[in-house]
Amino acid sequence: MAKPMAIEVYNPNGKYRVVSTKPMPGTRWINLLVDQGCRVEICHLKKTILSVEDIIDLIGNKCDGVIGQLTEDWGETLFSALSKAGGKAFSNMAVGYNNVDVEAANKYGIAVGNTPGVLTETTAELAASLSLAAARRIVEADGFMRAGLYEGWLPHLFVGNLLKGQTVGVIGAGRIGSAYARMMVEGFKMNLIYFDLYQSTRLEKFVTAYGQFLKANGEQPVTWKRASSMEEVLREADLISLHPVLDKTTYHLVNKERLAMMKKEAILVNCSRGPVIDEVALVDHLRENPMFRVGLDVFEEEPFMKPGLADMKNAIVVPHIASASKWTREGMATLAALNVLGRIKGYPIWSDPNRVDPFLNENASPPNASPSIVNSKALGLPVSKL
Amino acid sequence: MAKPMAIEVYNPNGKYRVVSTKPMPGTRWINLLVDQGCRVEICHLKKTILSVEDIIDLIGNKCDGVIGQLTEDWGETLFSALSKAGGKAFSNMAVGYNNVDVEAANKYGIAVGNTPGVLTETTAELAASLSLAAARRIVEADGFMRAGLYEGWLPHLFVGNLLKGQTVGVIGAGRIGSAYARMMVEGFKMNLIYFDLYQSTRLEKFVTAYGQFLKANGEQPVTWKRASSMEEVLREADLISLHPVLDKTTYHLVNKERLAMMKKEAILVNCSRGPVIDEVALVDHLRENPMFRVGLDVFEEEPFMKPGLADMKNAIVVPHIASASKWTREGMATLAALNVLGRIKGYPIWSDPNRVDPFLNENASPPNASPSIVNSKALGLPVSKL
Repeated sequence: MAKPMAIEVYNPNGKYRVVSTKPMPGTRWINLLVDQGCRVEICHLKKTILSVEDIIDLIGNKCDGVIGQLTEDWGETLFSALSKAGGKAFSNMAVGYNNVDVEAANKYGIAVGNTPGVLTETTAELAASLSLAAARRIVEADGFMRAGLYEGWLPHLFVGNLLKGQTVGVIGAGRIGSAYARMMVEGFKMNLIYFDLYQSTRLEKFVTAYGQFLKANGEQPVTWKRASSMEEVLREADLISLHPVLDKTTYHLVNKERLAMMKKEAILVNCSRGPVIDEVALVDHLRENPMFRVGLDVFEEEPFMKPGLADMKNAIVVPHIASASKWTREGMATLAALNVLGRIKGYPIWSDPNRVDPFLNENASPPNASPSIVNSKALGLPVSKL
Repeated sequence: MAKPMAIEVYNPNGKYRVVSTKPMPGTRWINLLVDQGCRVEICHLKKTILSVEDIIDLIGNKCDGVIGQLTEDWGETLFSALSKAGGKAFSNMAVGYNNVDVEAANKYGIAVGNTPGVLTETTAELAASLSLAAARRIVEADGFMRAGLYEGWLPHLFVGNLLKGQTVGVIGAGRIGSAYARMMVEGFKMNLIYFDLYQSTRLEKFVTAYGQFLKANGEQPVTWKRASSMEEVLREADLISLHPVLDKTTYHLVNKERLAMMKKEAILVNCSRGPVIDEVALVDHLRENPMFRVGLDVFEEEPFMKPGLADMKNAIVVPHIASASKWTREGMATLAALNVLGRIKGYPIWSDPNRVDPFLNENASPPNASPSIVNSKALGLPVSKL
């Protein structure tokens, strides 16, 4: 931490000291903290993942709150250090918090925040982007062009799939899965087949209404079907996107046997969690089926890929960027900052962490509340009546 | 042509000899010709673009019809050779026929076919695919991942654009432009602004109805606007796709001045024709505006790119594959084969070349007609009354 410029400081005379372990997109989160009397320190250490020791250095002797990242190990050691420095709040800049030992935070009375409600559309749009890129072999075709191999139009050059009228399969029709389903159904007139333990009534009703709307406008309607098994989706769909929660029932949900059930020219997309796919089996399947294509945002052992995957021309691989839109990332930074600020200021907890729009409106002051504190009940914090 | 396997022959004893200068996707086109008594010869010469001499060799002394490609020079020399060999028909496997001297074909009484009506959706889907890939920096992110540079999730890694709620601009709202507009409006809830010399009443009506449908379902409606100038689209849109016809009025339509009017973080897509953009000015603009992104399927001097374009990380470049879906390319091959067959058999010309569905139905025999002969009037050929 001795390097010059490793720490960027805003409002050095602020009453409360808030530390961000990483630079975060946008400036609104900084302004909101500064306006409320915080000194904001941002760590610019050129290191992808900060160690527990790095973060102890950052916390120092006096620190009111920290904004941290999913890649950091927030357990007993860090919460103890933060508590000793007078800290009351920590927020992940993430919706998940599997990197946080919430029990340890409870023990030290430290609020733990997360950033829900801003990732749905951005994540679904990445799944759509990977679907279309795989359908039309964009990465492979770009490499060919850039390498100077294009000599002239050819009937067989990078022939891909037309999506219109084909079937999109969605495994896990929660918020992100449903948003993705609608993009493919409405945008590309694909028919929907989905599998979920719970019926997605809202999605079914919408697609029914949309099909009627198309018909009323003289067009071919789209159809939907709730599958009775995941296998039914795998066998019938031309394009399949995975949106399940990762737990022991979904670990290696897509394995060798299930890959073999899919159409030879199908497209598989995964923007959920890496271990949902048996990545070794996937590499074999890609090798044996050159027209089978895959778009992956997540990997079984991030940041690594299983041997052979990086060489597959029928794979598109991106580094966990599903939530990487300017709007979403700035929203996440804002929510994380307001989680920390709210606890420092003694504000109540926002009543519905899934409806955080009032905090994101740049033309109005945010509510005097913490948007989403996951251990508010354990800490006995009051809930907003706003 | 002396190499073994350079020519693939089907039905060697067929009465009529039909030559295809390239292997074409699918097998239906071959079967249709064979079933009607044709000997089909397919050239497998490992050469991207055949010369006039190569094609004269292929025509030989007896040839009833040829299926050729947009990259070949069909003028006086070839039509004269085809006529001497007893030929009556030539069809491009393309909707365009700027490679064909139709006057020369008329002189020798040779019918010239093309393949309209099957490219719209496939081309619009490629424009959508490039739009989404550019918005989320897919090619750049894939290269980063494949190079082993991913070390862990970071707040700033490949942050792109959320399309929802942004504005899509369409320059040229004909069939392909309108199909693309609908994909982005319906799929991603983008608002539409378009510029075209002609009002696209059909598109306007549809987007109005769709906005009302969304509203009736409790959602934010989408909006549309017909711009009074192209500049208005350039200034207001976040994502712009070009779909004009190429002529002297649209040459370098997007030049240095017009690029400067666009938003700094805008996305520009071109699946129309290369010379619509001043490619040298575009390279400069990409260099000076790292967050400006472009998706290109066509280039000013194909198959080449202007210096520097291949090095730009904010460009996605693919080798003229807008019509490259299995469905479209097999449809193009079928239509080209039936154009040639129809003339050989003395069938009439199909009455509406834009509605060629009956020829594409794999479960039924095609009509006894040539789907689309561009010089049928000049040759005085009868029109189908089917």
